[in-house]
Amino acid sequence: MTNTTELVVKQILDTWYSRVQAADSVFNKLTDEQLQLEVAPGRNRVIYILGHLVAVHDRMMQLLNLGEPMYPELDEIFLKNPDKSKPEMPTAAELKLYWKTVNSTLAGHFSNLKTEDWFLKHNSVSTEDFAKEPHRNRLNIIITRTNHMSYHLGQLALLK
Amino acid sequence: MTNTTELVVKQILDTWYSRVQAADSVFNKLTDEQLQLEVAPGRNRVIYILGHLVAVHDRMMQLLNLGEPMYPELDEIFLKNPDKSKPEMPTAAELKLYWKTVNSTLAGHFSNLKTEDWFLKHNSVSTEDFAKEPHRNRLNIIITRTNHMSYHLGQLALLK
Repeated sequence: MTNTTELVVKQILDTWYSRVQAADSVFNKLTDEQLQLEVAPGRNRVIYILGHLVAVHDRMMQLLNLGEPMYPELDEIFLKNPDKSKPEMPTAAELKLYWKTVNSTLAGHFSNLKTEDWFLKHNSVSTEDFAKEPHRNRLNIIITRTNHMSYHLGQLALLK
Repeated sequence: MTNTTELVVKQILDTWYSRVQAADSVFNKLTDEQLQLEVAPGRNRVIYILGHLVAVHDRMMQLLNLGEPMYPELDEIFLKNPDKSKPEMPTAAELKLYWKTVNSTLAGHFSNLKTEDWFLKHNSVSTEDFAKEPHRNRLNIIITRTNHMSYHLGQLALLK
């Protein structure tokens, strides 16, 4: 790996961490009551977006071949069903803890990866397809999931 | 430049183009009346977000050392002032045309850049600082501005 490859992998990871930090500070400053607010009338509540982000980040574990998901029970609530359809949701305090845990666990794994490891295929592409589409590597998961956080951060910014 | 560097630069640009396309399809499907709607009560109107994205992308021209901005008059309306403070705004049809023009002009410039050109410094960092902070390159502008589009796309998704 050359210096430029190392540099650009670091830039992509730095952007990931900066968005995690931005979301952290949004969630930290909100009370449990504020987490029940909708970002716009009839739209997702903040607590749903929090749980959704936890579930998406938790799924990255397996997708990046780094281990098993820690909170697979969240998929049903926050990925497969829309907000307000499943009342049996973890509490705000639990979700805030899961959010911290999943991101710090990912960070621990990321710190052990070498630059070249980021160019290995992720787990939702076959070896055959990856040979033709080398961009379907682990790094692409970070790029798309960083943009996914930005997408929801834009919505959270609408809270008054 | 190695194959991996070329690959990752392409991945970053592909993500940029995919977000431009996503924003295109949002703006194209909205009528001029819908462009006057606020994304949430008391928040920015869609037309303001459109003009804001045009102004931010237009500024990239100079920031990336690719030429002069085409619509510098938009800065005052869409960057320096909040929505609804400057009534003398271009029409929705004009802004839609500017949006197409600025993005296709950028795409034309991008297609002429070699992989190594993306690692040159951008125009808001000094040569001295860039020597210490090589991540402040042109590529970083693309990464941050792609996330900026995702941020506003999240808000536009709240329209009913």
